[in-house]
Amino acid sequence: MTYSSFIPPQRILMGPGPSDVSPQVLSALARPTIGHLDPLFVGMMDEVKSLLQYAFQTSNEMTLALSAPGSAGMEACFVNLITPDDTVVVCQNGVFGSRMSENVKRIGAKLVLIEGEWGRAVDPESLDATLLQHPEAKFVAFVHAETSTGARSDAKVLCEIAQQYNCLTIVDAVTSLGGCELKVDEWGIDAIYSGSQKCLSCVPGISPISFSEKAIEVIKHRKIPIQSWFLDQSLVMGYWSGKGKRAYHHTAPVNSLYALHEALLSLKREGLENAWKRHQEMHDLLAKGLAELGLDFVVPENERLAQLNTVYIPQGINDEEVRRYLLNEYNLEIGAGLGKFAGKAWRIGLMGYGARKENIALCLAALKEVLATTS
Amino acid sequence: MTYSSFIPPQRILMGPGPSDVSPQVLSALARPTIGHLDPLFVGMMDEVKSLLQYAFQTSNEMTLALSAPGSAGMEACFVNLITPDDTVVVCQNGVFGSRMSENVKRIGAKLVLIEGEWGRAVDPESLDATLLQHPEAKFVAFVHAETSTGARSDAKVLCEIAQQYNCLTIVDAVTSLGGCELKVDEWGIDAIYSGSQKCLSCVPGISPISFSEKAIEVIKHRKIPIQSWFLDQSLVMGYWSGKGKRAYHHTAPVNSLYALHEALLSLKREGLENAWKRHQEMHDLLAKGLAELGLDFVVPENERLAQLNTVYIPQGINDEEVRRYLLNEYNLEIGAGLGKFAGKAWRIGLMGYGARKENIALCLAALKEVLATTS
Repeated sequence: MTYSSFIPPQRILMGPGPSDVSPQVLSALARPTIGHLDPLFVGMMDEVKSLLQYAFQTSNEMTLALSAPGSAGMEACFVNLITPDDTVVVCQNGVFGSRMSENVKRIGAKLVLIEGEWGRAVDPESLDATLLQHPEAKFVAFVHAETSTGARSDAKVLCEIAQQYNCLTIVDAVTSLGGCELKVDEWGIDAIYSGSQKCLSCVPGISPISFSEKAIEVIKHRKIPIQSWFLDQSLVMGYWSGKGKRAYHHTAPVNSLYALHEALLSLKREGLENAWKRHQEMHDLLAKGLAELGLDFVVPENERLAQLNTVYIPQGINDEEVRRYLLNEYNLEIGAGLGKFAGKAWRIGLMGYGARKENIALCLAALKEVLATTS
Repeated sequence: MTYSSFIPPQRILMGPGPSDVSPQVLSALARPTIGHLDPLFVGMMDEVKSLLQYAFQTSNEMTLALSAPGSAGMEACFVNLITPDDTVVVCQNGVFGSRMSENVKRIGAKLVLIEGEWGRAVDPESLDATLLQHPEAKFVAFVHAETSTGARSDAKVLCEIAQQYNCLTIVDAVTSLGGCELKVDEWGIDAIYSGSQKCLSCVPGISPISFSEKAIEVIKHRKIPIQSWFLDQSLVMGYWSGKGKRAYHHTAPVNSLYALHEALLSLKREGLENAWKRHQEMHDLLAKGLAELGLDFVVPENERLAQLNTVYIPQGINDEEVRRYLLNEYNLEIGAGLGKFAGKAWRIGLMGYGARKENIALCLAALKEVLATTS
């Protein structure tokens, strides 16, 4: 066993995440580690919280960066809110909707599944019809931006419907936060989670989450303990709370939080609306180029995510060969299809710092070359 | 809200963790992020696995770095192995033993608690007597190195006793891995977890874990699903497995794993036995100096951890004032007491890269000054 230091190449990350991390964020990441209870670090955590409230457009007090990836953020939302007696409606239109169903099952709660078409937005009418049939439903869960398909659902409308039936909403914003319109308070989202490594362009490993007052009330009135100690938000909040002394829960990922702080500062400096606009503009540019290459989008135009572009792999083209070529010849990563789209589609990400003209130019040029070569 | 980049000071971290991170590891951390399914990254994960097998002294196939802190590593061991029908003996002699009990309770399994004295090793005779009374017990769980008290338990002897009663063992090695003798295979440990930010001197946020073949058999034959999707090791293993194609589970904390790889390389270069020896030698030096300052150890000499030195705060000395002074005047962090020792003891860490003569000299000089000033 004679290993040496791992020196990664400089890739251009245009897959479904992790996305390109800016030099400023990498530089913040490498600053000296300090104690997680150091007053200076505690002050920085307060700033992260406040910057996350801005990114989520919420004044929710329980807004913080979970010390684990987005899939743990999902689980945190489900296990804190839901008990085995509850009925949960899950709108499933891709891999991450399926994962929500899996969470409900493992809690032992009653799952009402709305199976939607992959590559399409969640259908609001189906949700309305389902809730009419299930007055016992207490929660509605859906994915705002389905990373497996590139479809964007109308979170505002879905939340309105859920509220009409007095349901609390759990929303997956892993790929939407920072990349497209998302207004937690205005839309009335009750529990939301995201990831650090998508449109925030931070390193992977952290999950921003937020719970509404209504959600906190539900957690407070639980009759059985939360099944996870690590994800128990009543304990985690004592660690993140700005009021008085912090209660030790676990050791925060100090350096990754430096990076998240820096990434959120970039977002704040650009302005949230400007960031949304930039993603859309870059998407328009990319979409035009992909059309010129004869590549067809999986998702209809009005349901597309700007930040994740899913296109069908043309007939006769070898999926893996193309992706390997792009990686080896251009240091360019695009994403494979996932779930039902495995082998059938590519996922081209335009996320955060990666959503830049130079990346689009490179991606289109490289794709043009490889498609001409391998077809 | 006018925040700016967070520029932390250069602290000397001699608390209970995070410990000092070397410049090499920080430099590895900041290397360009690449995709978590990139063949080069997958190759690095294989090396991390193999280096962790060395650090744990195990050939366990299920050895990997969990994408979350040590407390999630603990929960992973408990929720994968234990079902509500099981009886679990927990040896509790500090905060982290209590956390083990909490895990058993949240699973809904039967807890048999052995309450030991804080600041002492777990008593092997109590374990033997308890197992004799509880033939239904299936698991024995204990903390090898109690970070809240500085006590080291005899993991080898405790595992031997557990095996005599056909119990599987779950061992907390958060503070022991890399800092003192630990031999997973030779001692017959069945499930073990650690943290990245103690004697490995990596950044916080990762938990190395390992499961024996016997433990894997138990997981395979579970009759009910693992309550956590994120911590389900049968899924996580598909992501870490070297055989064939990786199954996507979550996005690994890419940069933190660069850092762990580099930290484990340092350990390998030094040699595990040499690292253990260095911790002991540095402890002897520190202990001599602390005695000269009139500070008394909480733990009897033969049960002390070299890497975590717990001393009573002298009468008339203001705990917080001293720690604040050390931090502000010397950039030196020592740890507060935890649990029963809050306000009564300090915890002085000598972990990994931090276990160096210059740190000991500084710590003793600074303590000498502050004790003379405030008394």
